[in-house]
Amino acid sequence: METTRNTTTESEPMRIVVVGGVAGGMSAAARARRLDERAEIIVLERGAHVSFANCGLPYHVGGEIEDASELLLRTPESLRAALNLDVRTGHDVIGLDTEAKTLTVRTDAGTEPLRYDALVLSPGARAVVPPVPGLDSARVRTLRTVEDAVALRRSADLGAEKAVVIGAGFIGVETAETLANRGLSVSLVELAPHPLPPLETEMAQPVAAELRRLGIDLRTGTAAAEVRPGPDHDVVVLNDGTAIEADMIVLSVGVRPDTEAFERAGIACERGAIITDEHGRTSAPGVWAVGDAVASRDAVTGARRPVALAGPANRAGRLVADDILRPGSARPIPRPVGTTIVRVGDLTAAFTGANRASLEDAGIGFHTVHLHPKDHADYFPGAETLHLLLHFREGDGLLLGAQAVGREGVDKRIDVLATALRAGMGVADLIDLDMAYAPPYGHAKDPVNLAGMIGADVLDGTLRSWHAEELDRVLAEALVLDVRTRSEYDEGHLPGSMLVPHVELRERLDEVRAAAAGRPVRVLCASGVRSNLAHRLLAQEGFDSASLSGGMRTLRAALGDGVLSRSTLAERRG
Amino acid sequence: METTRNTTTESEPMRIVVVGGVAGGMSAAARARRLDERAEIIVLERGAHVSFANCGLPYHVGGEIEDASELLLRTPESLRAALNLDVRTGHDVIGLDTEAKTLTVRTDAGTEPLRYDALVLSPGARAVVPPVPGLDSARVRTLRTVEDAVALRRSADLGAEKAVVIGAGFIGVETAETLANRGLSVSLVELAPHPLPPLETEMAQPVAAELRRLGIDLRTGTAAAEVRPGPDHDVVVLNDGTAIEADMIVLSVGVRPDTEAFERAGIACERGAIITDEHGRTSAPGVWAVGDAVASRDAVTGARRPVALAGPANRAGRLVADDILRPGSARPIPRPVGTTIVRVGDLTAAFTGANRASLEDAGIGFHTVHLHPKDHADYFPGAETLHLLLHFREGDGLLLGAQAVGREGVDKRIDVLATALRAGMGVADLIDLDMAYAPPYGHAKDPVNLAGMIGADVLDGTLRSWHAEELDRVLAEALVLDVRTRSEYDEGHLPGSMLVPHVELRERLDEVRAAAAGRPVRVLCASGVRSNLAHRLLAQEGFDSASLSGGMRTLRAALGDGVLSRSTLAERRG
Repeated sequence: METTRNTTTESEPMRIVVVGGVAGGMSAAARARRLDERAEIIVLERGAHVSFANCGLPYHVGGEIEDASELLLRTPESLRAALNLDVRTGHDVIGLDTEAKTLTVRTDAGTEPLRYDALVLSPGARAVVPPVPGLDSARVRTLRTVEDAVALRRSADLGAEKAVVIGAGFIGVETAETLANRGLSVSLVELAPHPLPPLETEMAQPVAAELRRLGIDLRTGTAAAEVRPGPDHDVVVLNDGTAIEADMIVLSVGVRPDTEAFERAGIACERGAIITDEHGRTSAPGVWAVGDAVASRDAVTGARRPVALAGPANRAGRLVADDILRPGSARPIPRPVGTTIVRVGDLTAAFTGANRASLEDAGIGFHTVHLHPKDHADYFPGAETLHLLLHFREGDGLLLGAQAVGREGVDKRIDVLATALRAGMGVADLIDLDMAYAPPYGHAKDPVNLAGMIGADVLDGTLRSWHAEELDRVLAEALVLDVRTRSEYDEGHLPGSMLVPHVELRERLDEVRAAAAGRPVRVLCASGVRSNLAHRLLAQEGFDSASLSGGMRTLRAALGDGVLSRSTLAERRG
Repeated sequence: METTRNTTTESEPMRIVVVGGVAGGMSAAARARRLDERAEIIVLERGAHVSFANCGLPYHVGGEIEDASELLLRTPESLRAALNLDVRTGHDVIGLDTEAKTLTVRTDAGTEPLRYDALVLSPGARAVVPPVPGLDSARVRTLRTVEDAVALRRSADLGAEKAVVIGAGFIGVETAETLANRGLSVSLVELAPHPLPPLETEMAQPVAAELRRLGIDLRTGTAAAEVRPGPDHDVVVLNDGTAIEADMIVLSVGVRPDTEAFERAGIACERGAIITDEHGRTSAPGVWAVGDAVASRDAVTGARRPVALAGPANRAGRLVADDILRPGSARPIPRPVGTTIVRVGDLTAAFTGANRASLEDAGIGFHTVHLHPKDHADYFPGAETLHLLLHFREGDGLLLGAQAVGREGVDKRIDVLATALRAGMGVADLIDLDMAYAPPYGHAKDPVNLAGMIGADVLDGTLRSWHAEELDRVLAEALVLDVRTRSEYDEGHLPGSMLVPHVELRERLDEVRAAAAGRPVRVLCASGVRSNLAHRLLAQEGFDSASLSGGMRTLRAALGDGVLSRSTLAERRG
């Protein structure tokens, strides 16, 4: 007999049980109440707190959010009063019978069954703990709960002076920054070649520089091999043998869906993440799932992967409640584009959509453009450089991803590009966006418009660009034409490159033709503006020419300042 | 014989003449050079400067942009060097023969003809000077050119103490602010009932308050009737007889297309603005037009009106060059959505798309939602209130317009909404936008997502709202239910309203039913959050209920603080 009921009658209210009282789960519960005043809505939370500000945890560790109670957005009491929700903390779901529609719930008082009509799973994710000896030391902690944040804060309050943060993803970087701001000596260890691994190398370089400017000892391309506990402090030993003393160690190397009990109950999963349809329905009738534990489909590549972001979780929770209580009329849950942002000192780094690696994995052909405009009108005080990157599809120009790093205006551009990406815009459509312009805020040609102009020119062949990864071949096979000024050139340039300042190029074409001697000409300038102009001139004069995307700024960032100056860049200072 | 040629041969380069060397005209010239190295490109500018930062002029007057040379983005010399453009300042076009493809150009040296193959008209707009006696006083100036800005700045430098700015549109407000920052005593006179007339009343109220906080003597609903020049100062007499002394007077009551010579030559115009097709082509073959002088079609209402914004002008200039040099393959010029922004003290005010008046003029039925979230996570330091308004179409929810005012994050939300509007999104699509979230930047449910959630609920009837303009009828016919706390209520409330704090409502429904006695129930709270929840509860319990859009914050702003507290609001302080 089918027992799922999607309407509540006066005599027999529907019972909706939500497992997990943060973000997605709580959004589902709140929306359910707004749609159905009489439903019985029970929220089961394993931890001591519901509806807490997950994303604020690092800022409590460092004291930027002074009072931990600020992180508790709601309490069971306030949720009862405002929304008549039955919120039960300290309730751990250890079993599920989808046939009998019953959960097994463990509390301090023992184990009890709980019947449901509709079940929403929002169990979230647990911190990954790699098999490194010594990670069970009392000085090691992950950062997933309010208790974690309070404990780490206490370590700092009690006089910890040296911290090691393992993992330079978003939470690791935030935690390292906030501890450094508090005056601790901080080492930040990352296995990838640069911090914030989803960023492209050339975009992450300013972030690495900013972390170092903050006094953080950044160690990339390495990992913790062992933690050696000691009486006064622990020692973190890295792969390369380096030993770092630590009064506190924050482990932040990723999360995995916390779904064992549900997978055991037969809920279909893929690598531990719950598989759902576009309405959040799992493989079991009457069971929905949302949040970090779900294998979402990436909006750009279609790849299935968990997305550990509060925004998509909240919105999915709301739509799941719609599907439970208004079956047939709920809008589908959108595929996340995965917009992410982090503050690093005075910088902001953010991205939306796919990066190079995920596009290559998905076999999608794409172009990339780089630019370095100011965040607002250059002539208005306070303008700061904004590093911007765009990936778009070969052929039709569909937007695929964007990244930005800078001091001002990063969040705005990434949010606009996330919106354009969600709308399915092509790169040329960015030219047409009417962004708000007054000198303190932007440009008559906003960086987003400019990115569209450059991208559209690349797409239709008006502009041909070359990239840092082609450098070796370019140096071997082409004439490198540097169109900057003499003084810029003298500050450092590629070996064998020919200097012809852009404004002299029209008069000196014969010289360039002689020097090229039939080879391709690969043009560069500081940021790509002048080399794009030079390319247009050369291309119309019959040269096989291309312009370096993002200029020397992007090239230096892609190669690392050290590499470029040591081995590739001919220095002729003074 | 057809003489228009759209390709340049070696023997006979195409001559492109651009009239007007700012924004749209200069963009057309620069793009033309990038597309055609051999074309002859001549730019004729009546004034002394080309490519200057129009939008920066007010900030030079007040000294925020210290050096006027900062406003000169390009010079004829730099344009010659970089782009091989033939830029001629002091060249005024006084005649056009579209048959002979010849312009008549006046310079200090006399008058001469100039042949063209393709002509781009970008003459811009002149300041409107109303028929008010005394506006020819030497102390009165408009603000359209670098010379104007320099002259006004000089007045301030020479000790002007009292300024009157006539017109509180965007430029008037910027000028008043910058003069007040410089220490002048400033009066700002506006005929409309509030500053920044395109804003809705309830959005303009915080702007008016901020102008007053800056010490500006704001006079709305009145106009200058006369300027009486005197030896030491002028006197501006307003409609109501008030006389204001002024050492300098800035006239900023609007602009009109500067097209007389072209209209006389037979170029089709509408109320002085040049009519173009989607590629910028005028009624005469071989003649294009862009910028403030063109009658653009509004992206939302389809109404034809000049749009005096640099961004759309620049982009149209680029597309006109494409149409001249790549006929048949140029993208159409997008209809402007008219995104506009202004800084006012510590506030930013911005809008995109249509406002209430233009929607009513166009006969488009719409809903409006108001909300007052924080710009970023409430629990993270520095969160500021953001006032946000959205108009969307009845029936399908198509976005029509948005306005925002606040201290932080205004430009970002308006740019996202402008992008959504350009993409043709509906209000529910805003829920799905993946905006970048970390506590310093936004919310897991961004204000834009929230606006979408509220709007979608209004659209499908889940939420029913009432608005300030219904207040008289509501007071007469409904039970006003105030669901704030006792202390909020005691600070001021609507006469006859019943206080039932939201958290007590479930228990006190019988009381409300008795008080309503069959009348509709109109709920309100501070900002709309609690009243929306209360509405859902009441509606499900069978009440004829509705929630005040934007709560008391919006109501107070719509009515004006004074009105509400004097006559409508029952004060029971202490």
